[in-house]
Amino acid sequence: MTAKIPVSVLGATGTVGQKFVQLLAEHPWFELAAVAASAASAGKRYGEVVRWREQIPLPDRIGALTVRECAPPLPGPIVFSALDAEAAGPIEQAFARAGAYVVTNTRNHRMDEDVPLLVPEANADHLVLVDRQRTARGWSGAILANPNCSTAGLVLALAPLHRAFGIEKLFVSTMQAVSGAGHPGVASLDILGNVIPYIGGEEEKIERESRKMLGTLGPAGVEPAGFLVSAHASRVAVLDGHLETVSVGFGRRVTPEDAIAALREFAPSPCVAELPSSPRPPVEVELRADRPQPRLDLERGRGMAVTVGRIRPCPILDLRLVLLGHNTIRGAAGQGVQIAELLVADGRVEQ
Amino acid sequence: MTAKIPVSVLGATGTVGQKFVQLLAEHPWFELAAVAASAASAGKRYGEVVRWREQIPLPDRIGALTVRECAPPLPGPIVFSALDAEAAGPIEQAFARAGAYVVTNTRNHRMDEDVPLLVPEANADHLVLVDRQRTARGWSGAILANPNCSTAGLVLALAPLHRAFGIEKLFVSTMQAVSGAGHPGVASLDILGNVIPYIGGEEEKIERESRKMLGTLGPAGVEPAGFLVSAHASRVAVLDGHLETVSVGFGRRVTPEDAIAALREFAPSPCVAELPSSPRPPVEVELRADRPQPRLDLERGRGMAVTVGRIRPCPILDLRLVLLGHNTIRGAAGQGVQIAELLVADGRVEQ
Amino acid sequence: MTAKIPVSVLGATGTVGQKFVQLLAEHPWFELAAVAASAASAGKRYGEVVRWREQIPLPDRIGALTVRECAPPLPGPIVFSALDAEAAGPIEQAFARAGAYVVTNTRNHRMDEDVPLLVPEANADHLVLVDRQRTARGWSGAILANPNCSTAGLVLALAPLHRAFGIEKLFVSTMQAVSGAGHPGVASLDILGNVIPYIGGEEEKIERESRKMLGTLGPAGVEPAGFLVSAHASRVAVLDGHLETVSVGFGRRVTPEDAIAALREFAPSPCVAELPSSPRPPVEVELRADRPQPRLDLERGRGMAVTVGRIRPCPILDLRLVLLGHNTIRGAAGQGVQIAELLVADGRVEQ
Amino acid sequence: MTAKIPVSVLGATGTVGQKFVQLLAEHPWFELAAVAASAASAGKRYGEVVRWREQIPLPDRIGALTVRECAPPLPGPIVFSALDAEAAGPIEQAFARAGAYVVTNTRNHRMDEDVPLLVPEANADHLVLVDRQRTARGWSGAILANPNCSTAGLVLALAPLHRAFGIEKLFVSTMQAVSGAGHPGVASLDILGNVIPYIGGEEEKIERESRKMLGTLGPAGVEPAGFLVSAHASRVAVLDGHLETVSVGFGRRVTPEDAIAALREFAPSPCVAELPSSPRPPVEVELRADRPQPRLDLERGRGMAVTVGRIRPCPILDLRLVLLGHNTIRGAAGQGVQIAELLVADGRVEQ
Repeated sequence: MTAKIPVSVLGATGTVGQKFVQLLAEHPWFELAAVAASAASAGKRYGEVVRWREQIPLPDRIGALTVRECAPPLPGPIVFSALDAEAAGPIEQAFARAGAYVVTNTRNHRMDEDVPLLVPEANADHLVLVDRQRTARGWSGAILANPNCSTAGLVLALAPLHRAFGIEKLFVSTMQAVSGAGHPGVASLDILGNVIPYIGGEEEKIERESRKMLGTLGPAGVEPAGFLVSAHASRVAVLDGHLETVSVGFGRRVTPEDAIAALREFAPSPCVAELPSSPRPPVEVELRADRPQPRLDLERGRGMAVTVGRIRPCPILDLRLVLLGHNTIRGAAGQGVQIAELLVADGRVEQ
Repeated sequence: MTAKIPVSVLGATGTVGQKFVQLLAEHPWFELAAVAASAASAGKRYGEVVRWREQIPLPDRIGALTVRECAPPLPGPIVFSALDAEAAGPIEQAFARAGAYVVTNTRNHRMDEDVPLLVPEANADHLVLVDRQRTARGWSGAILANPNCSTAGLVLALAPLHRAFGIEKLFVSTMQAVSGAGHPGVASLDILGNVIPYIGGEEEKIERESRKMLGTLGPAGVEPAGFLVSAHASRVAVLDGHLETVSVGFGRRVTPEDAIAALREFAPSPCVAELPSSPRPPVEVELRADRPQPRLDLERGRGMAVTVGRIRPCPILDLRLVLLGHNTIRGAAGQGVQIAELLVADGRVEQ
Repeated sequence: MTAKIPVSVLGATGTVGQKFVQLLAEHPWFELAAVAASAASAGKRYGEVVRWREQIPLPDRIGALTVRECAPPLPGPIVFSALDAEAAGPIEQAFARAGAYVVTNTRNHRMDEDVPLLVPEANADHLVLVDRQRTARGWSGAILANPNCSTAGLVLALAPLHRAFGIEKLFVSTMQAVSGAGHPGVASLDILGNVIPYIGGEEEKIERESRKMLGTLGPAGVEPAGFLVSAHASRVAVLDGHLETVSVGFGRRVTPEDAIAALREFAPSPCVAELPSSPRPPVEVELRADRPQPRLDLERGRGMAVTVGRIRPCPILDLRLVLLGHNTIRGAAGQGVQIAELLVADGRVEQ
Repeated sequence: MTAKIPVSVLGATGTVGQKFVQLLAEHPWFELAAVAASAASAGKRYGEVVRWREQIPLPDRIGALTVRECAPPLPGPIVFSALDAEAAGPIEQAFARAGAYVVTNTRNHRMDEDVPLLVPEANADHLVLVDRQRTARGWSGAILANPNCSTAGLVLALAPLHRAFGIEKLFVSTMQAVSGAGHPGVASLDILGNVIPYIGGEEEKIERESRKMLGTLGPAGVEPAGFLVSAHASRVAVLDGHLETVSVGFGRRVTPEDAIAALREFAPSPCVAELPSSPRPPVEVELRADRPQPRLDLERGRGMAVTVGRIRPCPILDLRLVLLGHNTIRGAAGQGVQIAELLVADGRVEQ
């Protein structure tokens, strides 16, 4: 095997940044070459400044890295961004201008016409937007985005159904984990024994991002899917894992059996299916009545699979179902890493 | 003032039974005259056999009551039933046959044609089913039921909107507290840091009971409301309080402003509005973006009000909103007590 | 009755500040005349800037108050301080210099020789330190402090035992609620499904403050009690209520029966016992094996009583026991209000 | 490598039984050959009757096993017992009489003079009690026990200190996870947002079992260690992991540095250190101020290590510290598996 590809992480001390570090620590293709964070941390050892929250211990090699500032150049052709949205804009653009592929978890560029917003099993073909972006912006690099944490699982679960039957209407009510808000994020005084039925901006993201990702690539860019989305987003006292109840209607009549078959037969392109982070299968169909549950089903596909259960008729639309996705893996860092893998498999980054 | 009306509680040691006892302990019209429970407890002092879970201490007078068996006669014209559904059937019927008004929290008779299923602010007129029931069954008493815990709040919140605009379609996704399952109920191993997206039978109850209660009283009984209901019921790690996200469509276009006005103007009949347990107002409209929340809003109207918030347009139907109801008060014992008060106010039970 | 005494609250928007506001809103002796907070809030209506977290709604009258800056003068002879410790020092001193009795929840002056640190049932006699303070500092007002939240309950529970038997050794391991850290305080990501066995500075406070409060007033000030204290402080996923396991040894042999008798017979001075906030009894003895529990026993004495249970022999010292105190009432705002009541009852503030 | 040793599990459907199944599913020395459970489950496929609660999916091979009755013979020389204490007595004895080594998690025989109660790193030499047991009881097999879940971690953490310095006095206050009570175990209504300061029989087990395991093997059996133990046992809203605050005194003065050195230098016999389940190191010393925490440190040594932190002076005895052990691995099934490994390494069971 050839040498691994060096990569860097921006915002490496935060919750999502730590997850990037953990996933990259043992990655078969990538080698974490640099971690960058705020000026206050730059120059210190990563192991000193990070308040490491993962159960897996921080590898010594990475703990010993000197934290870099968030400015180009950083080692490697790919830079993962776990920056705060407030700070990310100019930094990510500077890296893209300087020639890096910036795979970002921030919301800033997700809806830009020329930025691919990717769940590779669902829309790897949108990757070509990168070319348009580089031309339009005159950059030697590019920005690619993973969707918001509750949309990633939703789109992965719905892609097979949309492809097979054509979604027309979609109701979704989410029950989202506190890790989605980062650290310190949600105060324990606010969420212990409680539900907060509001997450700022989340419903709009679900509505917009799902249509873009399930949209069609045309000559003028991505034509968003035409279905209507009505979302409710709530925060619950769960650490990791976003559970979503869904009612969905299609252009034709669809039974639960139809849907189960479509989910089980869902086969991403071989290029995507064989990425190191791609779970097999990407969608786990669960027939037990009380599943999926965050506690029991979250780690499927090492956090990259989405689990769909309770597939049953809907008295108003066609189907009701419940889905579960891992918000910091499929919904954030794991999704970013898989997008970077796609850049390699697609030949845009040399192995 | 005249003497209080003696009443009895069946199943007085369980979670809902204790709530009945607490609410009746200081009731202005009723005096708790007897508590009844399983044969294992009968003959002992209530204070010895109950594992009292309420924060308010058990009054000495009630703790000293000797537990009775669940068989007629028990003191008073009204008997509250917090029995398990498995045991309740013949017992409740025996009491009704023997002349008592049985106000029951069990599901057994809720959908019987001649049994009023009541949220008095919404459908006090259904009370006349009692006459039909007594005639049809040849009973000198009757059975009256309160709805299932998640339906009570839903119906109270929707009644003003249904009256004003006519509901056609209703999506509801619930996040229900563990107290809804009684004690021991949900195992802590199952719910800590988790969500269980399934509550056996709950979705069917929501769909059926809401249509019956918002239905129209006709010569042949209650004609269920014609709207379609699609429900998802989930259990969350909350002690008390069922939160529900709702999308609702009407026969005409309805704006959030229309809905807020209808909810605020909602005025139950004076007879109902002046019952001791009736909250004023019955529906609290909440304009803060992140409300209602179980922890903060549950005690409104001493647990008898429903709080409705996040009233906003729905991209598919007319409105989205979030509602919160107290599952063991409005959704169980408090609702039962209010129904009994209605029997008094209506002149069926003499004060 | 004469007019109520006007009082003011510093730091009125925080967690403890809100609790002061709630307790003072319906106080029989005091009238909340002014609320003060940071410069960012000053000049706005209290109802606009406070993120009210209490279940009891904010009274309209108080919501309409204009927030004042934290500088003298503010109305009334008594000022309650719920300021952050970092900011409190010069502000509180300025008020004392300007003639106010400052009853503070901050730690800054608790261990000052001339500042009374008070749990009135235990050491109301320490109030005379106020005279010394005024003389020594040349102030027309004075500072009085309530103890840290875990020490208040501990001292109230132990005072009767120390008086009767003389404590020599004390082990205490606390399980403290998140409200003790204020808002936002403990991040939900850190405490959900977890225990944090460390609270910065807490163990030292328990060790020092308990000895001062149970110490003896002499000509040279308070002589701290001579017993040894070994404390472990942990944070648990509880909203309100600090539970503490205690092993205690005395100068003579003490049986559980002796201790129960001493706790039950404990009678504060009539002056203290009759303060509006003083619970009757101050110490609740609980004989049920699995009590006290935060959920079930916290509200005793409206949060001002301490509950002591599991009084049993200790294989090493004399006794083991478990105690529960309300950390934001007895351990903070409620304790502050009771101290202010003592100032009135003692004649230092005119009614 | 030779063939694996067949083993069986009694009580395989319960919480601890499932953990045995999971640990044995991929064991390098053992092959799970049979699962046994109550008569109601016997004859059915294990996958049908078990309500599998582990995150790792149940292996198909094991799911396909037919559940056996809990009576000898079952395959293999070693039988793991996760039976309820009420049922275990005669069943375990029948297996031992029939020639099996019964490694039991139940409390029934732990304190029998001739039954080894083992944490192998601490007292592997007690294994010879097996010979005495077989002679005395005339059995061809024998019973070996692992300690109660909170004692296992305690003894592993204290063994190095007891060996080095000789414990004289020990205070321990536990905060125990709900999985320690099995499923359904603790009701969510009882523990959500709460602490229960009582676990029936637990304190006595800690006091007795720790002295037996740290006792000395003599000609007449195990002479319990002479130190005094005072325990408080509480239940907290944590899924897995028992945290314990400890104050400990020795026969000589011991500083934190002494203790850290002794813990770090602790080296079990090579025979024990090389068992497949033995963690390296067995005791993890943690210097960060707020550790160990169940959420972050529980999986160390795959749940078999104990983590000790906050080692600091005690104002009364010598040291204070906090320890964390995994209650269903080190404190139950993992401990049982390690004991079985010791039987193999010791040559009592042929590989």
